[in-house]
Amino acid sequence: MNKKELVEQIFAKESLLCVGLDTDINKLPLHFSRDIKGVIEFNEAIIEATKDYAIAYKINTAFYEQYGAEGWVCMEETLRNIPQNCFTIADAKRGDIGNTSSMYAKAFFETLKFDSITVAPYMGEDSLRPFLEFKDKWVICLGITSNEGSKDFQFLEYNKKKLYEIVIEKVAKWGNDEQLMFVTGATQSSVLKSIRELVPNYFFLVPGVGAQGGTIKEVCENAVTDFGGLLINASRSVIYASNKEDFKEMAAKEAQKLQLECLPHLRF
Amino acid sequence: MNKKELVEQIFAKESLLCVGLDTDINKLPLHFSRDIKGVIEFNEAIIEATKDYAIAYKINTAFYEQYGAEGWVCMEETLRNIPQNCFTIADAKRGDIGNTSSMYAKAFFETLKFDSITVAPYMGEDSLRPFLEFKDKWVICLGITSNEGSKDFQFLEYNKKKLYEIVIEKVAKWGNDEQLMFVTGATQSSVLKSIRELVPNYFFLVPGVGAQGGTIKEVCENAVTDFGGLLINASRSVIYASNKEDFKEMAAKEAQKLQLECLPHLRF
Repeated sequence: MNKKELVEQIFAKESLLCVGLDTDINKLPLHFSRDIKGVIEFNEAIIEATKDYAIAYKINTAFYEQYGAEGWVCMEETLRNIPQNCFTIADAKRGDIGNTSSMYAKAFFETLKFDSITVAPYMGEDSLRPFLEFKDKWVICLGITSNEGSKDFQFLEYNKKKLYEIVIEKVAKWGNDEQLMFVTGATQSSVLKSIRELVPNYFFLVPGVGAQGGTIKEVCENAVTDFGGLLINASRSVIYASNKEDFKEMAAKEAQKLQLECLPHLRF
Repeated sequence: MNKKELVEQIFAKESLLCVGLDTDINKLPLHFSRDIKGVIEFNEAIIEATKDYAIAYKINTAFYEQYGAEGWVCMEETLRNIPQNCFTIADAKRGDIGNTSSMYAKAFFETLKFDSITVAPYMGEDSLRPFLEFKDKWVICLGITSNEGSKDFQFLEYNKKKLYEIVIEKVAKWGNDEQLMFVTGATQSSVLKSIRELVPNYFFLVPGVGAQGGTIKEVCENAVTDFGGLLINASRSVIYASNKEDFKEMAAKEAQKLQLECLPHLRF
């Protein structure tokens, strides 16, 4: 999916919502079978319930890899159930030397057919380069993350710039805003504004809303753009809105609530 | 596998060699079928040919993930063919927020039963913590990598310390030398000595020997310890030593050559 198509989705659905399919067998609604089949059916139901409010779906690969080969089949099946007009994200945080990153790019862009993948910046340009060679595919590089551990290294200062600022400025130059995005945690709202100033034309993938504590209002006030510019992810608060028979209705209700929170911040 | 068992292997085989199973279907010897079955059979043959010289095997997950679910079956089969007395490494470079890293730990330590996994440090302590909670399992954190891109961020200086030094010193304190190792690229021999001084009791996983240009002699001179302290990885130079019928003999010969290069540096 290219940038124009993504922006069209945002304005058609009046939403910045990305639903994170962090599906855990142990948290499935009680009437689902506690196996891979249950996960596939649950994901399908969640997608069906939320697709009018979500512009994107993010699959956290860890949740699927824990089941080995079966988990990969589950990702493939789930991807097939996501409507073509929704943007898909492999939240995989990969990154390796060039010839290895090429293999990851092939795994996620060709074998699994995701629109995008999250990557870690520590190994530098040649570790991202192979992902950037795919047309209409996106690389979403970790900038500043939503977790407590983000303080360990991301805030180190070098010539009056924080490591996350150096990473974002440098990585932005390795590609352009038609193929690169940044992960910027919603729990870091105090710095979102300054990151938006650094890279005004880039999309941000923003995790950390809902269960992790960030709010859509704060995120939008600091980082929304004329083209939207944000994919705001909520996982647990949407997909586990209820573990009873009404889980679809409750997931839809929560997704709509989040979409409505985005609405006042979109400039038409 | 615990540290005592690993060190016993090193002295029993008089070797520091780790063989990297970066198996690419397109590079299989000409008489192999060009499919997953071919990869499984090739890996089995390489393991059989090199197991007297190698103390460890490293599986680069990217090479397997490119085939989706089938690739995961291939990893499982390959792991079954590695002798119990060899140390196994999932070269996966994972790392995510805590509840997600727990899933990766489960995937690689429980589902696939690897002894260790490589991880990226950018997301900080809580992204590594879940991996450290497994007994007799190892976390191998990126310190300094063997690729050109290592210069982009790893050498940034903060209070007269380079980022890779800060990472290694800090991460070392999150666990101990019975559960943590560091990736230190063989192509960075000028800094290996200073890293060894920082963390004298920790194992290093050293990629970059052979095709990437590092040498065992340089690596050992700078970083070998009384307990060995090194897992020196060679991939392409061993597994693709020949693409003809004699590939097993040639792989064995190359592995033995590397083992013999380690020998003078081991202190008995």
